[in-house]
Amino acid sequence: MATDFDLSCPVPLAAHERIVLPHGGGGRLTRELLDKVFVPAFANPALDARHDSALLEAGGARLAFTTDAYVVHPRRFPGGDIGTLAVCGTVNDLAMAGARPLALSAAFVLEEGLAMDELRAVVASMRDAARACGVPLVAGDTKVVDRGKADGMFVTTSGVGIVPPGADVRPARVAPGDVALLSGDVGRHGIAVLSVRDGLAFDSPVESDCAPLAEPVAALLAGGVEVHCLRDATRGGVATVLNEMARDAGVAIEAEEATIPVSGGVAAACEILGLDPLYVACEGRMVAFVAAADAARALDILRGHEVSRGAAIIGAVAEPGAGGACGTVALRTRLGTRRLLDLLSGEQLPRIC
Amino acid sequence: MATDFDLSCPVPLAAHERIVLPHGGGGRLTRELLDKVFVPAFANPALDARHDSALLEAGGARLAFTTDAYVVHPRRFPGGDIGTLAVCGTVNDLAMAGARPLALSAAFVLEEGLAMDELRAVVASMRDAARACGVPLVAGDTKVVDRGKADGMFVTTSGVGIVPPGADVRPARVAPGDVALLSGDVGRHGIAVLSVRDGLAFDSPVESDCAPLAEPVAALLAGGVEVHCLRDATRGGVATVLNEMARDAGVAIEAEEATIPVSGGVAAACEILGLDPLYVACEGRMVAFVAAADAARALDILRGHEVSRGAAIIGAVAEPGAGGACGTVALRTRLGTRRLLDLLSGEQLPRIC
Repeated sequence: MATDFDLSCPVPLAAHERIVLPHGGGGRLTRELLDKVFVPAFANPALDARHDSALLEAGGARLAFTTDAYVVHPRRFPGGDIGTLAVCGTVNDLAMAGARPLALSAAFVLEEGLAMDELRAVVASMRDAARACGVPLVAGDTKVVDRGKADGMFVTTSGVGIVPPGADVRPARVAPGDVALLSGDVGRHGIAVLSVRDGLAFDSPVESDCAPLAEPVAALLAGGVEVHCLRDATRGGVATVLNEMARDAGVAIEAEEATIPVSGGVAAACEILGLDPLYVACEGRMVAFVAAADAARALDILRGHEVSRGAAIIGAVAEPGAGGACGTVALRTRLGTRRLLDLLSGEQLPRIC
Repeated sequence: MATDFDLSCPVPLAAHERIVLPHGGGGRLTRELLDKVFVPAFANPALDARHDSALLEAGGARLAFTTDAYVVHPRRFPGGDIGTLAVCGTVNDLAMAGARPLALSAAFVLEEGLAMDELRAVVASMRDAARACGVPLVAGDTKVVDRGKADGMFVTTSGVGIVPPGADVRPARVAPGDVALLSGDVGRHGIAVLSVRDGLAFDSPVESDCAPLAEPVAALLAGGVEVHCLRDATRGGVATVLNEMARDAGVAIEAEEATIPVSGGVAAACEILGLDPLYVACEGRMVAFVAAADAARALDILRGHEVSRGAAIIGAVAEPGAGGACGTVALRTRLGTRRLLDLLSGEQLPRIC
């Protein structure tokens, strides 16, 4: 329906004199904040590459370096807690650059009054997740703010990884003909958090997909798959990731809705809540763009790992002139129609990670 | 005076069922949190070294890696803001490992309603400080939390640096006979923040000492000074740093009160406020432990850099059997008496960085 005022067109950043929740949602306003505030100030090749990790050279080694703040609410959800999330999220950002995680750091902002037992439990989750990934946590910091000046606990993890020789995984490598694989069913993290946040009881309880992706990534690279780019489908879900890739690589992406795995529990919850599962956050799912010739082998390798057992081929990068404009994602729906899969202005679910 | 209940002995952590402000103060309770919660969970050689930065090996390069959360209140103070602090603090932690800063990351937790102009101003401060240090900011993240769930803005910076060949700067290298140098007058950062926080107007306005120390450190190392350990005197001030060094290195340190530079403005403010300047935070001051034979040269080199122009020799590591117990710091006061310079339980000034 045409309207005089297009609700899908957000107010430009200049009109936002104050920070609003969608600035942190991973959608259009997050991108605008990045484009208009952060990138102009800090412009440099590593940042401009708009990768999940920055790539650095150090004494002959190729390093990946990344950081993420975690403010998930509530802090514990089916399948994990803020600690699991903080470790897996940073390990995954390193993996998305093709890197093997070398070391993590963690900085805590704690609110006065936080139960010591809860801190201990989160630290135990971080320890377990880090052990499972085989990566040490080597540096940390703790600050405490007065009661009412934070929300219990915020955790920021950073990570350093080593990119193996031969790997060259970055948005600029995505090319026409590349096949897009998704490593498993989408939306479980977002629905898991929402279920505890709002006290919803679904027929089939949904567990977060929060998990490290470093192993399947290492296997793809070790298996000689020509991996062009990887991105984990966190804030904004798989739809947002596909959009980011289309824009950052300057290509048109075609995806097939019927091939994107969605569990029954997530589908049911999304229907009740009026959410589109393609925009719901995951924390253990990635999209991989690989050379077409390697797609079948890549799928086999992913399916050989527990965390990516449900992998599927979900689309491809269009050839130039095939119809889609550069920077866009077209979705062939289950009904056989074709629609633009756009970036959301904000987020469907605030504080999901 | 002997008391039945020694007030200098804090309640042990086990008795703290909840986080209290002093857990983030950099004093005894911070150390206890580290000793009893974080280190047991994450134990590994890099973390156990208790250095300002963790040291890592990567493809032949020696890396330093560090992280710090910044929650300073208020966010703007004479001489800088939370952005200046976040960049200088992380650059300094890298420098304290002898490393040349290679890249920084920044993660922001923003409270809904924060003025966009303030965010822009902080980002500009970070850009300026990073440029002054010649280090790029290559990775970032932004999260937004609902109004009332944070205090405007928290910034966590992490950094990666490269340790030059030959440098071996860590607590374990501190040895009897080493000379302790301080790079300038102490306490200016803490007093600057306090002056705006409490709306105090001192006769001589005090500016924060917030500044990067990477240059004088590089000069010490390039000049062939045998630098054994470096630590910046942040939370808890120079007294806390000396205590940390004494404990981490397992040595007794002797310091001379009269040699520790304190500006007139800081001395006057401390007198009014009942603070001991030796415990007030700096953000651009370090203690350097160097081989005795190199002390005079180290002093010359430090004085040749603007940021460390006020450097002084303030003490030495005692020879075994000279009196002081390992892990302690003895201060010869201006009156000629000798007293133990101990760790505070908490902090004199919360949210100073």
